[in-house]
Amino acid sequence: MNKPSLLLACPLPNIDLPELARSFTLIGAGDRRMERDEMVALLPNCQAMICNTSQPVDRAVLDAGPILRIISNFGVGYNHIDIAYAAQKGIAVTNTPDILTDATADLGFALILATCRRVGEGDRYCREGKFTGFEASLFLGQQVYGRTLGIVGCGRIGQAVARRASGFSMKCLYHNRKPLEKSLEQERGLQYADFNSLLEISDIILISTPLTPETRHLFTLEQFQRMKRSSVLVNISRGPVVKEAD
Amino acid sequence: MNKPSLLLACPLPNIDLPELARSFTLIGAGDRRMERDEMVALLPNCQAMICNTSQPVDRAVLDAGPILRIISNFGVGYNHIDIAYAAQKGIAVTNTPDILTDATADLGFALILATCRRVGEGDRYCREGKFTGFEASLFLGQQVYGRTLGIVGCGRIGQAVARRASGFSMKCLYHNRKPLEKSLEQERGLQYADFNSLLEISDIILISTPLTPETRHLFTLEQFQRMKRSSVLVNISRGPVVKEAD
Repeated sequence: MNKPSLLLACPLPNIDLPELARSFTLIGAGDRRMERDEMVALLPNCQAMICNTSQPVDRAVLDAGPILRIISNFGVGYNHIDIAYAAQKGIAVTNTPDILTDATADLGFALILATCRRVGEGDRYCREGKFTGFEASLFLGQQVYGRTLGIVGCGRIGQAVARRASGFSMKCLYHNRKPLEKSLEQERGLQYADFNSLLEISDIILISTPLTPETRHLFTLEQFQRMKRSSVLVNISRGPVVKEAD
Repeated sequence: MNKPSLLLACPLPNIDLPELARSFTLIGAGDRRMERDEMVALLPNCQAMICNTSQPVDRAVLDAGPILRIISNFGVGYNHIDIAYAAQKGIAVTNTPDILTDATADLGFALILATCRRVGEGDRYCREGKFTGFEASLFLGQQVYGRTLGIVGCGRIGQAVARRASGFSMKCLYHNRKPLEKSLEQERGLQYADFNSLLEISDIILISTPLTPETRHLFTLEQFQRMKRSSVLVNISRGPVVKEAD
C-alpha cells in the first residue's frame, strides 16, 4: 500500500522523523519554515500537512491541496487558518491546546514582572557597561505585589496566570463574555468586572482572549484612554486584539 | 538653639526637604551621590548623614566626622559601613529593613522568569527588528512551572520568594545555617536541604543571604560544578557571595 504524503512545512524541533517516515512519505525535512509559494507547489500530492501559526493557510493554499485530508497545526492558535473553508472541503484541522497553558502563563507573568520592574531596560544598561552603583531612583519600577490585575479573556491561560498572581497577593479581576461559575471564581480568587470597570481599576491588564471577530481590535484608543496613565498592558493573545495604529 | 547639620550624601527621591530643614541644617541637596572626597570634606561639621549602599563608609570616612552621631543608610544592606568601628565611636547606624522585602522578592522572581524564559534576549531581538514570525525553537526557554527552586539564605526575602513560587507549583528547597521552625516550613511550603544536596537537586537557585564573612565566596567553582548543567542561578544578595573570578 502506498503511504500517504505528509508536507513538513515548518521546523519541528526534537521530532522523530524515522518514526514519522514509517507511516508517511515525508515531503520536506521539517527544518525550516516554507514560504507560501513552496507550500502551494508541494501540496497537490499531499494528504497531510504540518504547519505553524506564522503560516497563513487561506482559501488559495487550501485549494492547492486537492487530496489534502488533515492539517496538523503546531500551536494553539488557529486564526491563520481559514477553518470554515477547510471544513467545507472536508479537511480536518488540529491544534495543540493545553500543552502550552503553563508555559504561556509563565511567559505572561514574566512579561508583567519584566515590564513593571524594567528588566529589559536594566539588562541593556548593564550590558552597555553603564552601571556604576546603586541609585534609589535608577530604574525605579512599579510594585507588582498587592496590586490589581485585570485579566481580559479568562480561559485556561488567564486562570493559570491568576494562580501565579495569588502568590504575589494580587487582586484579580477578569472579564469574559459570560462570567465563570461562582465556585470557580472562588477557587481561583477571581472577581468578575465589566470591561470598562476593569480598564479603569486595574494597575496591570493582561489580554488572554482568543482572536475572533468579536475580539479583533477590542483595544482601541478609547480603551487606552480609560486606563490609568500608569497602567501596564501585557498582550499574550494575538496581536490584532490591539489596534496599534490608533 | 542651633539645628544639627545633616549631610545628604546620596539622591533622595520624593523627599520632603522643607520638612527636613525644620529640624536640620541641610548640607547638600540630596540630588546626587557624593564622592568620597566630598563626603570627607563636609563631614567635620555634621552630626548626621544619609548615604546609600554604594557609598563605602570605612574608618577614614568615620574619622572625618568627629561630631557625627548617626548614619541613616538608605537601604537594607550595610556591608559597606564599618559598623564595628562606628559602634566603637558611638555612631548609630540605621537601615531600612522590611520596606523592600516585597519589591526585592518581586525583582528576584522577575529575574528567575526573565532568565528561564529569555526575556532580555527576546527583547533585544525584537527591538533590532529581527523577529519575522513564530518558530517553535526560537528562544526556546526553560519551564519555571513545577520545577525545583533552591533558596540559599531563606530569611524574610527568601520566604517572600517562596510564596511567589507556590503560585507556580514549584517545589521549594532551602538552606540556612539552621533550619526554620517546622511550622514555618509547612506554612511556606519549604523543605530544608543541606547545601550540597540543594545545589545538586535544584533547577533554579536563588541566593538571598546577607553578605557576611561566612557567605563571602560561598559560591566558588566547586559549587557551580555541583549544579546541573542547565541550572539557573539568580543572586539577589550581594555580589561577593559569588566568587566570579573562579
